[in-house]
Amino acid sequence: MSIDIALNEAAGAVNRLLTDLLPPVDGAENRVLDAMRYATMGGGKRIRPYLLINSAALFDVYSEYALRAAAAIEMLHCYSLVHDDLPAMDNSDLRRGRPTAHKAFDEATAILAGDGLLTMAFEILADPKTHPDGQVRADLVLALAKAGGAAGMVGGQMIDLWAEKNELDIGAITRLQRLKTGAIIAFSCEAGGILGHASMAQRHALISYAHDLGLAFQIVDDLLDAEGDAETTGKPVGADAKAGKATFVSILGIDRARDQAKLLGQQANSHLDMFGAKADPLRWMTEFVLTRKN
Amino acid sequence: MSIDIALNEAAGAVNRLLTDLLPPVDGAENRVLDAMRYATMGGGKRIRPYLLINSAALFDVYSEYALRAAAAIEMLHCYSLVHDDLPAMDNSDLRRGRPTAHKAFDEATAILAGDGLLTMAFEILADPKTHPDGQVRADLVLALAKAGGAAGMVGGQMIDLWAEKNELDIGAITRLQRLKTGAIIAFSCEAGGILGHASMAQRHALISYAHDLGLAFQIVDDLLDAEGDAETTGKPVGADAKAGKATFVSILGIDRARDQAKLLGQQANSHLDMFGAKADPLRWMTEFVLTRKN
Repeated sequence: MSIDIALNEAAGAVNRLLTDLLPPVDGAENRVLDAMRYATMGGGKRIRPYLLINSAALFDVYSEYALRAAAAIEMLHCYSLVHDDLPAMDNSDLRRGRPTAHKAFDEATAILAGDGLLTMAFEILADPKTHPDGQVRADLVLALAKAGGAAGMVGGQMIDLWAEKNELDIGAITRLQRLKTGAIIAFSCEAGGILGHASMAQRHALISYAHDLGLAFQIVDDLLDAEGDAETTGKPVGADAKAGKATFVSILGIDRARDQAKLLGQQANSHLDMFGAKADPLRWMTEFVLTRKN
Repeated sequence: MSIDIALNEAAGAVNRLLTDLLPPVDGAENRVLDAMRYATMGGGKRIRPYLLINSAALFDVYSEYALRAAAAIEMLHCYSLVHDDLPAMDNSDLRRGRPTAHKAFDEATAILAGDGLLTMAFEILADPKTHPDGQVRADLVLALAKAGGAAGMVGGQMIDLWAEKNELDIGAITRLQRLKTGAIIAFSCEAGGILGHASMAQRHALISYAHDLGLAFQIVDDLLDAEGDAETTGKPVGADAKAGKATFVSILGIDRARDQAKLLGQQANSHLDMFGAKADPLRWMTEFVLTRKN
């Protein structure tokens, strides 16, 4: 099986579940549910759900549980996109070729939709239906809260805003990436281990894989911004350089950044050795991250 | 003991804990923690923590656990105030006599601080330190997510925005109140029962008390807006009428609204009969809600 087929399959399953989890309601509050549906159903690659599902599969977790946790992590990811796109933040009008949530609805509804998705991510994780035998693993909820909060994604976004007016060095950029996007990618992989009652050594291996993968992902992102063409990437290129923003590419240069990404990819895969062939879908993801064109 | 002393004592304890839970960090992300501290330490009455602490006391829950859950519910409450105050929402410059978070910091930081507080509320509830014997009650986390989400507070705020341009009848206003503020007040009382391993009958009694108390609270709020003076209430009076907003007072009239609040207060207390004198602090709160002047 190729990564494209596997990724499509996971995306299809998580999309169906997201639709089920966000049914229309009879009341004026349906508008916020509309916006939550809009924000989650915009056709993302569903990389985080893929990571969660395939980490859980290492431990033979039934897919119905992994899928629910995957839907929760995608809700959290989509909330962060909705809030990051707001006029007060990145002020983006387009996301994946469609109007952003505050453009398709309005700013107040977009703020509430983000709040609603963040809250619902916790609702799903704390639901016995998400856990084998209905035994809720509270450490799953705790891990998501840590990854999403001020010491994770929210803190990372704060640093990112600060970086617009301040010079970052390579250490600071690495830390920014680790908080802003790395923590949630690490959670996606760790969550499979938690649901699967993995040993601490196995959980740490998954987290290490995720850290290297997430950093490689960001470096490739910076490379695409520096050299990709707008038609393939689906977004304006050179935006970072124009904004005078320090990136891995602006500091390392294109060649060293590319070498670094490759090295991180090898390192990521080395953490999967203990899982044997069962971890192939995670190895495919490494390849996908390194070779993606958008 | 009077309600004033009891309320002050609970507020002091929860304020100390909130300060401990939000320590400064060494990094650019400290700005969002600053804003989270600012938003939580603005001197609110801490009614929700009081309800949680005194509901838990019915079941002899050690105060250290109840206090942590109380801090979590106050974080959730403060996040909702920060987001509701934003320019795209109620556009308020002042809150409790101080600049609102987006005025004291900036809009992006305020959005992130709200997100951070919401996330941290779940982090605290899912932490073994919040639960007797470290046994996390996942139903506590689930109950908060339901009360805070699209079927609770977030949904209520959506209806409130919709109501600015639409006429509500008494049924719709009651439903708006139940979602927007009632769900979290009900959670505050139910949470004490959950931590205390209360029976379902006891939990339902607490929820019924909270529903009546919350509705009475809102009616008194509308009465203060209609008849209070700005100096005592600390906010402009007549704001609802000026905005052409339907309230309990605009529909029922002042006399019937006052009768209704009194009736709800009696009804609230009637649900506490099964707890005997132990529930006196909750009865004091009913009195406080009915007689408050701000």
